[in-house]
Amino acid sequence: MSKDETQSTVKSAMKMMGAHVINAVDELKDDQVGAVIDHILSARKIFVIGAGRSGLVGRAFAMRLMHLGLRVFVVGETITPAVEKGDLLVVISGSGETQSVVDLAKIGKYLGAKMISITSNPKSKAARHADVLIVLGKRVKTNEMDYLERQVRGTHRSLAPLGTLFEITSMVFLDGIIAALMEITKKREMDLKLRHATLE
Amino acid sequence: MSKDETQSTVKSAMKMMGAHVINAVDELKDDQVGAVIDHILSARKIFVIGAGRSGLVGRAFAMRLMHLGLRVFVVGETITPAVEKGDLLVVISGSGETQSVVDLAKIGKYLGAKMISITSNPKSKAARHADVLIVLGKRVKTNEMDYLERQVRGTHRSLAPLGTLFEITSMVFLDGIIAALMEITKKREMDLKLRHATLE
Amino acid sequence: MSKDETQSTVKSAMKMMGAHVINAVDELKDDQVGAVIDHILSARKIFVIGAGRSGLVGRAFAMRLMHLGLRVFVVGETITPAVEKGDLLVVISGSGETQSVVDLAKIGKYLGAKMISITSNPKSKAARHADVLIVLGKRVKTNEMDYLERQVRGTHRSLAPLGTLFEITSMVFLDGIIAALMEITKKREMDLKLRHATLE
Amino acid sequence: MSKDETQSTVKSAMKMMGAHVINAVDELKDDQVGAVIDHILSARKIFVIGAGRSGLVGRAFAMRLMHLGLRVFVVGETITPAVEKGDLLVVISGSGETQSVVDLAKIGKYLGAKMISITSNPKSKAARHADVLIVLGKRVKTNEMDYLERQVRGTHRSLAPLGTLFEITSMVFLDGIIAALMEITKKREMDLKLRHATLE
Repeated sequence: MSKDETQSTVKSAMKMMGAHVINAVDELKDDQVGAVIDHILSARKIFVIGAGRSGLVGRAFAMRLMHLGLRVFVVGETITPAVEKGDLLVVISGSGETQSVVDLAKIGKYLGAKMISITSNPKSKAARHADVLIVLGKRVKTNEMDYLERQVRGTHRSLAPLGTLFEITSMVFLDGIIAALMEITKKREMDLKLRHATLE
Repeated sequence: MSKDETQSTVKSAMKMMGAHVINAVDELKDDQVGAVIDHILSARKIFVIGAGRSGLVGRAFAMRLMHLGLRVFVVGETITPAVEKGDLLVVISGSGETQSVVDLAKIGKYLGAKMISITSNPKSKAARHADVLIVLGKRVKTNEMDYLERQVRGTHRSLAPLGTLFEITSMVFLDGIIAALMEITKKREMDLKLRHATLE
Repeated sequence: MSKDETQSTVKSAMKMMGAHVINAVDELKDDQVGAVIDHILSARKIFVIGAGRSGLVGRAFAMRLMHLGLRVFVVGETITPAVEKGDLLVVISGSGETQSVVDLAKIGKYLGAKMISITSNPKSKAARHADVLIVLGKRVKTNEMDYLERQVRGTHRSLAPLGTLFEITSMVFLDGIIAALMEITKKREMDLKLRHATLE
Repeated sequence: MSKDETQSTVKSAMKMMGAHVINAVDELKDDQVGAVIDHILSARKIFVIGAGRSGLVGRAFAMRLMHLGLRVFVVGETITPAVEKGDLLVVISGSGETQSVVDLAKIGKYLGAKMISITSNPKSKAARHADVLIVLGKRVKTNEMDYLERQVRGTHRSLAPLGTLFEITSMVFLDGIIAALMEITKKREMDLKLRHATLE
């Protein structure tokens, strides 16, 4: 494979992922976006749950919620306390079937927490237990994407293997939620900066 | 703020981030993309270094490198061994000035490792020590982005506070590198899946 | 509570924990200690599994196994690969009933791995699935401990709440295993030091 | 090396570590133990800092402080906020010279936090910046230890390589501090259990 082909693959993959993010906007249902915001603002404590790269996306979201002054914890980190009634789970799982994630979600629900599920699989266990369901990362066929794929002589999948599209779209969606929370709570960038870890 | 305005903010932020990713492609210099690939394929061991959300982006990349069968470690995790000559550091820092990240990069260089820096600040310390420098996440003004921003009566920053644009663009860029590595090493999605953690 | 009483509590608690560690030695069964060593030395890859403070004890052990040059991973960290036949699970759980830990252990066994369980509960699920079972942290009544407890007018438990005795005894036991592995593999302290993370 | 010798090494190492913990009690200075307790109870927020196995000991301590209802964070985890005047750093470093740990401690001090240093090196940088200094893990020669060492024909070091004695003694010391905090704040084991993570 030549240098030119390599660079062309990197660029086509990036354009395809960017296009996927933009197309995902049209898949969002308005009342569900509002429900995510409402649940976050009314929760006593927020717990982010996810495994693998979905778990990393969840942590990126948790860090911003902390910057906004909300009480948020990452399941599996050291100082995460007990779940109680009035708390909120934010569950991120592309397949919606990761065993440990589903188990934790069930226990949290049993303890009285509400649950937002972000998944690419609306028929999964993580989806079925949700109070608010956000479906992201489904592969949308467009002429532009077809063109990008053909260009690299590969398949859609080889440009974004496994859960890549879901993970990137989830990260962007959750950063969009942060933008809305900043507006609603009238927080400016400087307010977030002041809470940002000074020891890192 | 009304429900409609909230939803409009989420969607505008997502579209803006997607557009930013696509625009970032034109900022990439071809020889640097090739140099990233070459350094990764010729490294004995790869060490990913980053703090905060940049560190999470680094971990997402490290997981895919492991899926590809490469020897990769995340600085700060439990089983990360010593750096030696012939190793590669992948340093991710939006500001390029995070103290602990710069310190670690210097020590790694001193021990004989090569270094790829991914930053939005080409004049930073992380940039100056780099063997390969990738600059991402600079704010590119386009008519489309102006429109998105005006629409929400906010500033560019409030739609993507602090390092958000850098973090998302870095994640997409590094996933583009994975797509190219899959092609070069002739790995299919199934090869990655077989290495994916079965305990998670 | 006076300053003197506070200091007396700290010291009594420490003496009690030290005594507990020494007493635990007599509870170990010789053939099981040998089986732990044999399984570690013959494993293709080693996976450490644990939640909470038991998980931290597991990571401390994993770091030393890495120092010894063995292929070891911590379940839940970024670059942990798939479990295969010939691999070894080291499961650490005081209660032996932590849901996620038991689930992961079962999956690992199903995939063909062997399993060492370290627990204070020989009747737990984690114990039942084990190929090698090490029971530690049971509260052994001795005259010396009775004296220490009476001295602080508290109960045994208040000097070492929840799984504290198990966690400390496990950590010391696993460091004892490291001492034996060093002897068997003829590794000196300097060999470990050379593999110790230089970026931390 | 025979099976008997292996088992004898494990047991001698454990007894040696237990004896070391008990001997460490006599090294503690009373006013410093009291100062640790006072600083913890009067801190606005507590930040635990450490690398490698010392960092794991710090996390085990942080988890118990959370169980006691205190506001505590682990530097490097996701939701750790900014340090402010009135906060407390708990720095754990055997050598007292780990670069990143010393850097973080200096920044924290500069931002107005108080600092407890736990180290085996009273002349280290981590020791010099401390408001309260606890020295642990120095090797104390006793007849009993001499006997244990000769028994395995090794050196003291090979039974507990690198910082092992410091790490175990620190863990036990900090668990002793937890015992005293429980007494002072009149918390029972059940109070801790109620705050313990239900999702793990």
